[in-house]
Amino acid sequence: MDQSNSAYCFNPIGFVRADVPDEQVAKQRSTMISTLEILPQYSAALLGLDSYSHIIVLFWMHQAGGREQLQYHPRGDERLPKTGVLASRGRNHPNPVGLAVAELVNVDDVRLTVRRVDAFDGTPIIDIKPYDNYDVVTHPRVPAWFQQRQNK
Amino acid sequence: MDQSNSAYCFNPIGFVRADVPDEQVAKQRSTMISTLEILPQYSAALLGLDSYSHIIVLFWMHQAGGREQLQYHPRGDERLPKTGVLASRGRNHPNPVGLAVAELVNVDDVRLTVRRVDAFDGTPIIDIKPYDNYDVVTHPRVPAWFQQRQNK
Repeated sequence: MDQSNSAYCFNPIGFVRADVPDEQVAKQRSTMISTLEILPQYSAALLGLDSYSHIIVLFWMHQAGGREQLQYHPRGDERLPKTGVLASRGRNHPNPVGLAVAELVNVDDVRLTVRRVDAFDGTPIIDIKPYDNYDVVTHPRVPAWFQQRQNK
Repeated sequence: MDQSNSAYCFNPIGFVRADVPDEQVAKQRSTMISTLEILPQYSAALLGLDSYSHIIVLFWMHQAGGREQLQYHPRGDERLPKTGVLASRGRNHPNPVGLAVAELVNVDDVRLTVRRVDAFDGTPIIDIKPYDNYDVVTHPRVPAWFQQRQNK
């Protein structure tokens, strides 16, 4: 574990542009449309992306706070069992990396129109990846509380 | 785009331990078993993770090279169409972040046994996330060449 203090650094490959106000993003996530503005020097790196219906977007939640807390009630709901931050999809992971499986609506050079990226306007993009068949788990097991919330 | 030169840095939350030699990882990826050794200070952050059958593992491919190349033939196969690096799941993205959807075989405190993480022994782990129903795309569209290779 001698490497545990090494830091790794990255430069964004682009930024999220969203018209939705920050405080509305969580609520509107399932339908919201955003633009991923990829930096012009990566234009050639997007060749063929439009053959995919979905992409995985990785972003850096530069506004996320509260990283010292290791357990919480998901969605702030005390009726839900206390859960470790790494066992949830909340914003308070030790490294604030956001991950969204998004529908790729349109590609116009370096501007990608996407549905379902729950990132604030201005969020730095770390990486994008095409979503493929190996990302599909047909019947993933999830906790009972998650299943119940989803069925509501 | 004035922020494009800002670097963001992270510290690993743990490291991948794998018995498979580096040059065998790509070949054995679909079956290989690895251990994710999460740092002890994040033990509490794993509470509840074992309720999920699958997790998404994000790692930093510290040995990945060739980042200057923006297009290539997937898997080095010249019969496959030239593809942008951001439109493929290869190792040569501008930021060398690896992403694997993995089966969570066992959780023993901070040691997670996983199947299907194609990372070399010693790879720094950026983040893990539970895989849930929102990550499932039932019939994703992928390029013809991908579909053909998969069916072989």
